[in-house]
Amino acid sequence: MAEPLRIALAGLGTVGTGVIRLIETNAELIARRAGRPIAITSVSARDRSKDRGVDLSPYAWEDDLTSMASRGDVDVVVELVGGSDGPALTLARNTIAGGKALVTANKAMVAHHGLELARRAEDAGVALKFEAAVAGGIPVIKGLSEGAAANAIDRVYGILNGTCNYILSTMEDTGRDFADVLSEAQMLGYAEADPTFDIEGVDAAHKLAILASIGFGARLDFASVDTAGISRILAADIAQAAALGFVIRLIGMAELESADGSCRLFQRVQPHLVPVDHPLAHVDGATNAVVAEGNFMGRLLFQGAGAGDGPTASAVVADIIDIARGEKGATFSMPVSELEEMPRAQSGHRRGRNYIRFIVPDKPGVLAEITAAMRDADVSIESLIQKGRAEAGGEVLLAMVTHEGPESAVTRALELLDGSDSLAQPPLVMTIVGK
Amino acid sequence: MAEPLRIALAGLGTVGTGVIRLIETNAELIARRAGRPIAITSVSARDRSKDRGVDLSPYAWEDDLTSMASRGDVDVVVELVGGSDGPALTLARNTIAGGKALVTANKAMVAHHGLELARRAEDAGVALKFEAAVAGGIPVIKGLSEGAAANAIDRVYGILNGTCNYILSTMEDTGRDFADVLSEAQMLGYAEADPTFDIEGVDAAHKLAILASIGFGARLDFASVDTAGISRILAADIAQAAALGFVIRLIGMAELESADGSCRLFQRVQPHLVPVDHPLAHVDGATNAVVAEGNFMGRLLFQGAGAGDGPTASAVVADIIDIARGEKGATFSMPVSELEEMPRAQSGHRRGRNYIRFIVPDKPGVLAEITAAMRDADVSIESLIQKGRAEAGGEVLLAMVTHEGPESAVTRALELLDGSDSLAQPPLVMTIVGK
Repeated sequence: MAEPLRIALAGLGTVGTGVIRLIETNAELIARRAGRPIAITSVSARDRSKDRGVDLSPYAWEDDLTSMASRGDVDVVVELVGGSDGPALTLARNTIAGGKALVTANKAMVAHHGLELARRAEDAGVALKFEAAVAGGIPVIKGLSEGAAANAIDRVYGILNGTCNYILSTMEDTGRDFADVLSEAQMLGYAEADPTFDIEGVDAAHKLAILASIGFGARLDFASVDTAGISRILAADIAQAAALGFVIRLIGMAELESADGSCRLFQRVQPHLVPVDHPLAHVDGATNAVVAEGNFMGRLLFQGAGAGDGPTASAVVADIIDIARGEKGATFSMPVSELEEMPRAQSGHRRGRNYIRFIVPDKPGVLAEITAAMRDADVSIESLIQKGRAEAGGEVLLAMVTHEGPESAVTRALELLDGSDSLAQPPLVMTIVGK
Repeated sequence: MAEPLRIALAGLGTVGTGVIRLIETNAELIARRAGRPIAITSVSARDRSKDRGVDLSPYAWEDDLTSMASRGDVDVVVELVGGSDGPALTLARNTIAGGKALVTANKAMVAHHGLELARRAEDAGVALKFEAAVAGGIPVIKGLSEGAAANAIDRVYGILNGTCNYILSTMEDTGRDFADVLSEAQMLGYAEADPTFDIEGVDAAHKLAILASIGFGARLDFASVDTAGISRILAADIAQAAALGFVIRLIGMAELESADGSCRLFQRVQPHLVPVDHPLAHVDGATNAVVAEGNFMGRLLFQGAGAGDGPTASAVVADIIDIARGEKGATFSMPVSELEEMPRAQSGHRRGRNYIRFIVPDKPGVLAEITAAMRDADVSIESLIQKGRAEAGGEVLLAMVTHEGPESAVTRALELLDGSDSLAQPPLVMTIVGK
């Protein structure tokens, strides 16, 4: 058998220790599949003394993780430190500059610096891989960049954040409110102490920007992802949605808008209403799922565990096995120079159905003012439910679903209502996922 | 840009013409992704004069398809002729012997001769790829052999035949009987004039044997797939299943049975009862779906179009792009010599819940005889429904669901009843898919 592929592991959190456990547990099988053994040679983390439940004595310890990049006994550096900049980025640059392959699970770093790193990797002739950065254990980077490579893809969307999906599906199952379910999720370890990146959609936006780049052959553009989170969703929204035949999911949606021979890139993370007969409506708990629509393959769905040490380690080691097999590939499915620069699409161009929820004072004339604004902006209302809220004295919930129409009309209607004392708080708009 | 990769296309049915259309339509995008253009140089089929809706004039015509293998202007032969032996197999052998890569969509040939061809390809140092042989446009071969490569997989199962799934989900939606829906499916082109391979489970068995080999690192063993089709399923079975919270799907199920340090291979295609909250319960129409369970990634689901010219062409061209990128890979995810020879597992070792349906004469004592047989064989009954059949004078349907127990007990119970005049026809057993 060929020489082992030598791995340096930077970062020994749950994923890092998961990678060690995986490589140790499945060593023989991995060697058969990779054609050579995978050997961890050195590890690094902030705290050497911490008990991580794995025996680190077989591996050299490196106090300064960025110096992993210059070790002579390393072929691949696995970066599991996290953070878009700082030590992770320094390590990534040094690794590539040192002529070593880089595997990372760091979505923030890839979303912010992916093109720069990919160009450096191309110049150095080394592999840069990040399957674990998107949707945990689901091989969706490989699925898009290789499995679906023959297709022009014009839509990639999915459930990309397990924490949000856990919270939403628990709200759905129990009828409880957001804040209540969030604190339980934090206690159970399903949500971070500071959950902002998850619940405000930033984590999903990182992943969406990566998927859009690979799917569309577009230059990665995280800055133009329009992002909204789930913290404003009420138990009552979920109940209204259910009554109308929908569930609520945080969905990252990327679309290619072709017009006048050029392409624009639409990227948005926001809560959506998903029809109960859509495959994404059955994705519960911390599960992730990604849908890609191609001009020949039709609709393809990948579903699996979106987080956790085991699934994420599975994706990290899949990248390592690819490298051991000599399959380097282009980082974003094509060389950076081939990626198309696409301007941001205006969401107003999109047509669709929307759910709009208002919290309004319980007084005469409110309904007339809101429906007049809809009429004046040419928003056609398909259904409307007004419902008293037991917990909020004097305020009622008003939920409507629009007929299909331009999003710009909904925006205009809400502008007409802006500042009106008919609204007790800003309205919440959620797009309905089409067929 | 590098030299084009030159393709010979053998077989110009719907998939072959789909491949031509795809390569022409997406040429520019494919070249960006593959790093070089894909150029069809020659084509071959039985009938040159037939109008296929694509212009064949840019391509050299070869009357004898097996001679594609020796053309000087070809790097990859794409075999879309079909049939496990005959011209397809000759072409495959000649292609590899001629030092060319082979891409095929031929599940029957791979199921019967895959190991031989893979060994030949290894010896010749050429690629042999067959993504399109399993589950049409879904990149499940790549998903298992690369995406899930870090995992010990102990279970692979799924909906592998679009024709059966179309028939079953239409029976479910309309309450109509099998024969009725089959003839409609034939009229609509969803089922072949001779549908035997599809409805008797042979096509699904071909695909299952391929998935099991790749998933488990086992030597492909099509002969030991236990196969039953859907032709005996009644509208009443579907109604009973629905009343109990299940749908009926034809499922190919492969499991690795580890005992005493050695592994046995369980492979079975048969109709199963699927709980309505299982992801496979929502796979309708001609859609395919495959689930793989790994020791680190957990449960992974791939879902998409299982047949049709576009999706199948998408998989064929994905293989071609891999070859253009220089990613050869091992045909069954590891060299043939590394694949483990696994004896067939006895289904009697399995434990599970089963649905058993009897058609019995409407006379006293029948129920007593059947329940006594269950008792004597130690089969514990969870629920039982007896229902008159309007259409069959004097016969009634008796459906039961067992508690979890060994399959051998069910077999023993049915042996006790074998030949009894309490049974108007042989009973139908369907396993219930577990969580």
